[in-house]
Parts: sequence; structure tokens; C-alpha cells
Amino acid sequence: MELVFLGTGAGVPSKSRNVSAIALKLLQEQNSIWLFDCGEATQHQILHTSIKPRKINNIFITHMHGDHIFGLPGLLSSRSFQGGDSLLNIYGPAGLKEFIETSLRTSGTHLTYPLSIHEVEKGQCFTKGNFTIEVEELEHGVPSFGYRITEKDKPGELLVDKLKEKGIMPGPIYQQIKENETVETEEGELLSRKEFIGEDKKGRVVTIFGDTRLPEKYREFAKNSDVLVHEATFEHGKEEMARQYYHSTTKQAAMLAKESNSKKLVITHISSRYQTEDDFRLLEEARNIFPATEMATDLFQVNIEAL
Amino acid sequence: MELVFLGTGAGVPSKSRNVSAIALKLLQEQNSIWLFDCGEATQHQILHTSIKPRKINNIFITHMHGDHIFGLPGLLSSRSFQGGDSLLNIYGPAGLKEFIETSLRTSGTHLTYPLSIHEVEKGQCFTKGNFTIEVEELEHGVPSFGYRITEKDKPGELLVDKLKEKGIMPGPIYQQIKENETVETEEGELLSRKEFIGEDKKGRVVTIFGDTRLPEKYREFAKNSDVLVHEATFEHGKEEMARQYYHSTTKQAAMLAKESNSKKLVITHISSRYQTEDDFRLLEEARNIFPATEMATDLFQVNIEAL
Repeated sequence: MELVFLGTGAGVPSKSRNVSAIALKLLQEQNSIWLFDCGEATQHQILHTSIKPRKINNIFITHMHGDHIFGLPGLLSSRSFQGGDSLLNIYGPAGLKEFIETSLRTSGTHLTYPLSIHEVEKGQCFTKGNFTIEVEELEHGVPSFGYRITEKDKPGELLVDKLKEKGIMPGPIYQQIKENETVETEEGELLSRKEFIGEDKKGRVVTIFGDTRLPEKYREFAKNSDVLVHEATFEHGKEEMARQYYHSTTKQAAMLAKESNSKKLVITHISSRYQTEDDFRLLEEARNIFPATEMATDLFQVNIEAL
Repeated sequence: MELVFLGTGAGVPSKSRNVSAIALKLLQEQNSIWLFDCGEATQHQILHTSIKPRKINNIFITHMHGDHIFGLPGLLSSRSFQGGDSLLNIYGPAGLKEFIETSLRTSGTHLTYPLSIHEVEKGQCFTKGNFTIEVEELEHGVPSFGYRITEKDKPGELLVDKLKEKGIMPGPIYQQIKENETVETEEGELLSRKEFIGEDKKGRVVTIFGDTRLPEKYREFAKNSDVLVHEATFEHGKEEMARQYYHSTTKQAAMLAKESNSKKLVITHISSRYQTEDDFRLLEEARNIFPATEMATDLFQVNIEAL
């Protein structure tokens, strides 16, 4: 499980930061890749990675602003051109279906694969394989969503030492204990699964926020994230401006990470008013509050260790 | 007057060639820039040039395929973001208005300048300052247009030697001769303008073709171009494939340049099946027929000398 930040700037592309897109690579888990937002030239950024557009089978759009969606028609076309034939789901706010369908129809684009567009709502929750996705509505002037992706917990390991103490030696019975509530030994003893299996391993949680102001409202939604991805359009001190423009600052993102008990914060969606030489200062503002912060730059990767 | 090739590939972007867009810089002539097609990430390519989006006041779309239009919504938004406030005209086939208006509306994009979208037809001709633009319909499976831009002829120069021979010395009368059909000298002699003014200087002609097959049909439209810009999606030998896919080969483009008596040919819209190492071979195929050929690469410029 890896995050690849394909575009990390806000509003307009600059030479150093493209507009928003994040790939969540689930190649080991699902043999697929999910995309969060798709600003213009996301497919161009993908050319500089190992990502194959045909492996992208779910796209989640946080909100309809152009810097988050204008790369969709081109990516969908290229996925066809490059031989994609499997179902592609796209999730996002109302208006998404009209934008995509009009773009494809007026450009005479015929896809080689089935496309399913789902307009989502606050509070929705759906499951894909071992992952559930929860949807929260944020505060951005237009409908803007956050997506919390939770991996299913994995059962704990067999407590081999405890079994051996009891004189139960390795054999087919070990597998039976794993798979059944109770198992009877040859001696007629009833073994309870829960006695010989360790605690469940918690599934990983990745929470990806769309653009929003006042992120402190969403502590519960972000709670215990392994990785929390949040916008930090402005520097600390610009909280009032951030409120007016429905965005967040470095400090606000870091406070949310701290108060939600997240393990790691990645800040992104940095305003084009800042230059590369400002990056360190912005990052330090967040780290002063939440040390486990990284600032995404284009093509930055975060590995999220398997259980 | 300069052409800047912003994207020179066909269908999908590659690392070396972006999808179609050409800027015609008319900064000296009109203090403006015209754009021909606007594939995805045209605004990104512009970041690597001296072009200011707010100077672009006319955009001509050859046809509605995605690799020629998917950069429009982003470019229009960024022109706003960067303080553009002057009228922008966009010309192109039916469907263009719906594509643009739906993209802007569904993304909540409010432009800071007036936008006027004109759907064009074969045979249309319009004038902008000292330039006329003629529209030809090509053969591409969908409506596809070529645009022939003709600069107004400039009056010839005053034949000073001839005037001096006649004893008419420099003074205000020279300007009068330039500006009037006939002028009476102080001695009462009638001077005819046309006797003392050299031949008109022909205005420059730039013809930009949209995607098309069988370009030999358009000799008349391309006639006497100073610069002819034509697609060469495929190599020589693939004429039958080109016909099937409504495209042209290097040879076909070169034949058109030759038979239309054009001065220079620039081939572009090169299929992504070709690698950079194929460029020379493709160019030679055209040059064997029409030596004054150039192959456009991204950010390639052509200066067209002022009269």
C-alpha cells in the first residue's frame, strides 16, 4: 500500500507543482490502483511513474473545482487507448456525471471499458474487497468530501507456544483451530479458537481530505489514521484568509493530525504563492505541532507497511 | 509573427510530445496571441514559454477530438486566475460551446473576462485587424477544419529615385503622394500615385490544417502559403492506414506543400508509435519531396519574417 502524490499544488499548475491528484497503490492488496482527484495533466504525471492507467479501477473525486477534475476526460480516453477493458468506477459530487458524459460525448470519445459514475453523499459507506470507504462532507463553499479508507482487521496469529505447552503438536489441527470456533482433539478435549489465537491486527486507515476550512470539525472522521492527507493551502498566521477562502493552514492541518491521534500527516495542496524555498518553513510550522508530518511534493511516495 | 508548437503528438501525450496546440504570436502586429487547438496540459506547456495566457484573445479549434480540446477548461480558468480581463473569442466545430459551458458550469468556474464561443462552418471568412481567416472543412470522420490566415497586403514603397529624376525633392509632398490617388505639384503638374509607388507587398499567409486524410484535395486552400502546418501522423508507406484512420503521412503532407506552391512546411501531430530516434527518418521522407520541411517538436518555434 503506497500513496503517490501526482499533483500537490492549489488552483493552477506551476513549474514545480501540478494540480491535485493522489494515487493509492493497492497492487498487493487488490491488484489495482485508486485515484483521488484528477487535475489537468494527471495522465502526464503518471508517465513519470510505474502506474498503468488500466490498473486504475476506482477514482474518488473530492470536489468539482477544475484543479481537481479537468484531467478526467483525458485520463479516461488514454485508459482506453492503452487497452484498458475492465470496469472503472468514479465517485464524487453531483455534477460529475454531467461533466464526464458531456466531455466524452462532445469529443466523440468511445471508451473500450464500462464506466460507472456514482454521485456520493455525506455519511455514505461502501466496501471494496478488504476495504471500506466512508464519506464525510467538508466545508469548502461547494460540496467537498473526505474519504476514509479502512482495511479490514486481520485475525491474530496462532499462539503456537501455548498449544505446545498443552501438548498439541504442529499438524493439520493447527489449521482447524484457525478456521473453527471450537475443535475437538483426538483425546476428546474441546479447544476454543479464541484461547489460541492472538489479538486481531488492526487494518490500516488512510484518510484523504478534500479542500476544507476549519478542519478541527473533523477529528472524529480522521481518528486514528495511519496516514492523514490534508490540504495546507496557506501558511500559519493566515487562518482568517483560509477561513474566507474555505481552505486550511499548515497549523490547522497539524492540529487535526494531533487531535485525531493520527500516526502520520502528509500536507499537500500548497498555494502557488509559495516558492520551493518556502517549503521547509511551511513544513516546520506543521512539525512544531505534529512532528510526524511530511510535505508532499510532486511524485512524493509514502509507503504504508503491510500488517 | 511566430509560431510556437506547444504540443506535437497525436492522440495521447508521451514524455516527448504533448497533445496538440500551436500558438501564433502576433505581438508586433496585434499585441495578441492566437491559439490553434488546446490539448490537455497546453497551459503547462505555456509555463515553459514567454506566452502570457491573458495575451491570448482568439482560439481556433480544428476539431473536437479530446487531444485537441481537453486543455481548454484549464486554460480558460488560469487566464482568469492570472488576471485576464479582455474578451476571448473561441472558434470551432459544433459541440464546442456545450463542452466549454458544461465544463465551466459544473466546476463552478467564473471567468473574470467575457468569453464568446463561435461555431464555424466551411467557407466562412472573417477579419481581425490586418488578417483574414478562411475556414475549410477537411476529411477526418468528424467535422475538422483548416484555418488559412492571410495578412493584408502592404502598399509598396515610394519610388524616391523616380521622383527625384522628375525634380520632385523630399518634403511633405512625398507623404501626399503616398496617401492620395493624384497630387498636384506647385507647378500644377498632376502626379498619379500608382506611378510613384512600387508594387504592393504581399501579406504573409499561414495555413494551419486540422487532422485530415487525403490532403491533396486541399491544394487550393493551401496555395502559396508562407508556412503550411500539416499533420503527418504516419510514415510514408502507411497511406492506406492513414486513409482508414482519417490521417495523413509525411509524404502526403509534403506533396501538398509542393503542389500548393507553399514556401515552408511544418509537419506535426506525430503518432506516439514513433520514437525520438524515428524523427530524422520521418523528416527525410518529407524533405525528399519538399526540401523546405521542418518537423515540429514541443516548443519548436518558426519565425515568419515581417514584410
